[in-house]
Amino acid sequence: MKKIILILLVCIFIFVLLISLLTAGQKTAIVQYPEGYRNWTHIKSMVIQKGHPLYESFGGIHHIYANKTALKALKSGKPYPDGSVFVFDLLEAKSENNAIVEGSRKVVGVMQKDSKKFLNTGGWGFEGFNGDTKERVVFDPKDACFSCHEAQKQTDYVFSSYRK
Amino acid sequence: MKKIILILLVCIFIFVLLISLLTAGQKTAIVQYPEGYRNWTHIKSMVIQKGHPLYESFGGIHHIYANKTALKALKSGKPYPDGSVFVFDLLEAKSENNAIVEGSRKVVGVMQKDSKKFLNTGGWGFEGFNGDTKERVVFDPKDACFSCHEAQKQTDYVFSSYRK
Repeated sequence: MKKIILILLVCIFIFVLLISLLTAGQKTAIVQYPEGYRNWTHIKSMVIQKGHPLYESFGGIHHIYANKTALKALKSGKPYPDGSVFVFDLLEAKSENNAIVEGSRKVVGVMQKDSKKFLNTGGWGFEGFNGDTKERVVFDPKDACFSCHEAQKQTDYVFSSYRK
Repeated sequence: MKKIILILLVCIFIFVLLISLLTAGQKTAIVQYPEGYRNWTHIKSMVIQKGHPLYESFGGIHHIYANKTALKALKSGKPYPDGSVFVFDLLEAKSENNAIVEGSRKVVGVMQKDSKKFLNTGGWGFEGFNGDTKERVVFDPKDACFSCHEAQKQTDYVFSSYRK
């Protein structure tokens, strides 16, 4: 009888442990929405126009923002510590009277460094949030994001440099 | 003898007072360089192209930044308190492979609110700093800046609205 109870307890313990590990994995392996990024430091901007190879995905005017951790590493040229976050804020680019002005937000792209959680994509988690919502749009970060960023290995997969 | 000393002392007092007032006026009636503005909140951006009426003066890509005091007022729609500062950061806009990228800095334009010191220009001091230097380029702020900003009286002479 004692043996059965012991086996049962061990089984329950293992079951609970597995569930906890799975749930923890699910909760933490997603990229967080970058709350407050509009007050982060603006790194640089660019307008991608028709004819550019990335026009279909990223046509419009985009601004890059960095949180304090990412900014410090970007400026110093040192590796990015966990907690570094970059935002790629893509807006429509509207032509008006020989000027280009900003239109609606298309996507808020995010790169979030966590070297343990995002092992398959260079230690960075990649996500996109649709327009002004928190609807996630990246289903395969390795294919949709990292396949391009991979080429920037020498700068820890970051394309931007700080424009003074 | 006492009378002469007294008159002399009064004269010295008035002379020192006048000099102090004049020096204070000279020191404070100029717009300060907006130290650290690259970490202020980025408000919006725009590209001014050939054919635009402001191309000669402001052709390129510009970014607007606000310090905390200006940002709070801009978002709330309340009048701008003294100490509010906006920066108009103008860079060359270079066309490269169907994209517009940022080039060298052309000018750092500044609007600094001080309702007492800048009475003739709506309570705002206007200045421009040449490229990456602190060389001042605005010699007649009323003519060079306020003549256009004057039309925006209903928003306290500010053109920008906050783009979320």
